[in-house]
Amino acid sequence: MSLSLKASPLPPGSTLGILGGGQLGRMLSQAASRLGFNVVILDPEENSPAGRVSQGQIVAAYDNPTALTVLGQSCEVVTFEFENVPAGSVERLAEGGAVVAPGPRALAVAQDRVDEKTFLNSVGATTVDFAAVDSLNDLISALDRLGTPALLKTRRDGYDGKGQVWIRSVKMAADAWQAIGQCPAILEARADFVRELSVIAARGRDGRIAVYPLGENIHKGGVLKTTIAPAAVEPKTTKRARAIATAILEGLDYVGVLGVELFDLGNGQLLVNEIAPRVHNTGHWTQDGCVCDQFEQHIRAIAGWPLGPTTAHARVEMTNLLGDEIEQWTTLSARADTRLHLYGKAEARPGRKMGHVNRVKPL
Amino acid sequence: MSLSLKASPLPPGSTLGILGGGQLGRMLSQAASRLGFNVVILDPEENSPAGRVSQGQIVAAYDNPTALTVLGQSCEVVTFEFENVPAGSVERLAEGGAVVAPGPRALAVAQDRVDEKTFLNSVGATTVDFAAVDSLNDLISALDRLGTPALLKTRRDGYDGKGQVWIRSVKMAADAWQAIGQCPAILEARADFVRELSVIAARGRDGRIAVYPLGENIHKGGVLKTTIAPAAVEPKTTKRARAIATAILEGLDYVGVLGVELFDLGNGQLLVNEIAPRVHNTGHWTQDGCVCDQFEQHIRAIAGWPLGPTTAHARVEMTNLLGDEIEQWTTLSARADTRLHLYGKAEARPGRKMGHVNRVKPL
Repeated sequence: MSLSLKASPLPPGSTLGILGGGQLGRMLSQAASRLGFNVVILDPEENSPAGRVSQGQIVAAYDNPTALTVLGQSCEVVTFEFENVPAGSVERLAEGGAVVAPGPRALAVAQDRVDEKTFLNSVGATTVDFAAVDSLNDLISALDRLGTPALLKTRRDGYDGKGQVWIRSVKMAADAWQAIGQCPAILEARADFVRELSVIAARGRDGRIAVYPLGENIHKGGVLKTTIAPAAVEPKTTKRARAIATAILEGLDYVGVLGVELFDLGNGQLLVNEIAPRVHNTGHWTQDGCVCDQFEQHIRAIAGWPLGPTTAHARVEMTNLLGDEIEQWTTLSARADTRLHLYGKAEARPGRKMGHVNRVKPL
Repeated sequence: MSLSLKASPLPPGSTLGILGGGQLGRMLSQAASRLGFNVVILDPEENSPAGRVSQGQIVAAYDNPTALTVLGQSCEVVTFEFENVPAGSVERLAEGGAVVAPGPRALAVAQDRVDEKTFLNSVGATTVDFAAVDSLNDLISALDRLGTPALLKTRRDGYDGKGQVWIRSVKMAADAWQAIGQCPAILEARADFVRELSVIAARGRDGRIAVYPLGENIHKGGVLKTTIAPAAVEPKTTKRARAIATAILEGLDYVGVLGVELFDLGNGQLLVNEIAPRVHNTGHWTQDGCVCDQFEQHIRAIAGWPLGPTTAHARVEMTNLLGDEIEQWTTLSARADTRLHLYGKAEARPGRKMGHVNRVKPL
């Protein structure tokens, strides 16, 4: 697979597959179409946001062997909009004849929080102290070592603050262990950070790396609310973030766009919170702040094209529209400085990501 | 129909119809999706460039009554990517319950070159001298009045230089009359212009007008090759072009984006060459030169949304990729200043518009 990843760039007219039909798949599909590619989506939900703007959609579960073989046969490259792609699915896709990018190693590392932090530390990307937790006893000794408050998370799955609980004293250990379902977990020490940053970076098939300016992120209830980019950071912070992103991309022999969430400790130190082996919500600002956004960048990378430029030509404040905030579209559509990106989701369930807006200002 | 055109803006999630599945329909569909709309294409070619990025495509002739009724029933608004939509088709769409924008008057005027020039002159938009030609006798007297060289064109149809012939002396009259098929025609005096300009303008349902900076166009063999925008013109030229566009939009009670091709006579005078009641090839530069491009602008207008801003944030050189020029994608994709827009057309027939590139420079 590594060999074919190094092969000639895919010509326009080739077909790309995307696992996942949500908004990330939708914006990836639109970017791919702009470059002349055809796109097929695999998603169990009929008429998904991404399927609706793509040439085809296979409606099936992500681990449906037949669906995966068919997708692998119809596509030159397959990518994904979420990291919890089963390893078996990747094998099936490869059997069909498709290259999967990013590759299995990036997926494996991103799917397990203990493996992820172990990998990060191994390439010099510092994280908070952590401990693997497989039992209540493990949890109690981990709390003894890391102190409280500490954050208990499932090792696998969980996103946007789901599957995690803060432990403020050892007395809460048993309840917390119950709350996350007594499954393999990680205990993380608290990071004493002054703000949350993120860096979106890409690596091409040729090994070249392109890094976007940093974003500063504001979360609300565990869900990203706003990214301001380029973030007002000192050059040494940017330099450090670039070094971290580069170490991760190279350590994983990565192809595609990667999101790295960072804790800024305010003393020049950056800790990696987590990585996402895909386009990332904190990179949506690039759609209106850079000539080549993270979606086109990802398509370029996985198709073996040269990476595009990553410099910002504007300052952007990206804000997610969650649940019924979508109803603000009438006001937002009238603002000359505001670009709307709506996902075409029918039902505005509370907290659901329905769209985002980029408020664009001169640099 | 006028009343419903003035009604509330269409909410995201509404369905828009587009007659025509080529590149203009494709880029309109992509812009509509970004704003959360669903799109249905009507095009006789299966799996058309626009159909491939839209929720649905009805594969039928543009005058198929059933297809038009179904499209009208499934869409709140229907628009088109070409001006030769039969008047009967518009009636059928309206019967289905859809508003058609731009409306029948704009279509009628744009479909007949004599009606078009007559209308233009009536709103103060000067054109070359012209004469309606229905017979060889008409042609000979028209040549007598307008002199040679003069351009004989069919009154209807014809684009990209098709259906027209230059007459250099009266002796050529009979051959020319034969060449265009002895059908209702127009003879146009030659314009002694120094360059070709165009202006892309939009009018919303609320009557507001937004005009983009002018483009300077270079044609080759009757087909647009390059647009440079914003064009280097004097303020009075811009002012005059804006006045012309405004007069046309208001004269037609127009809703949507309109392209106006202009001859710059070099003495401060502008003649209108022709108008296109749709997004226009000379407006593709707005995709990378403006935050709200002509495609989003058109969708905003027909959906009753406020128009977006039209100021340029970059200087753009747009170049069409015709026929096998598409093969330059490997070189072009490596240029940091060049944005590719490829249409996903399978067959690169000579002269066929396969894509375009926007070369972006600072203002």
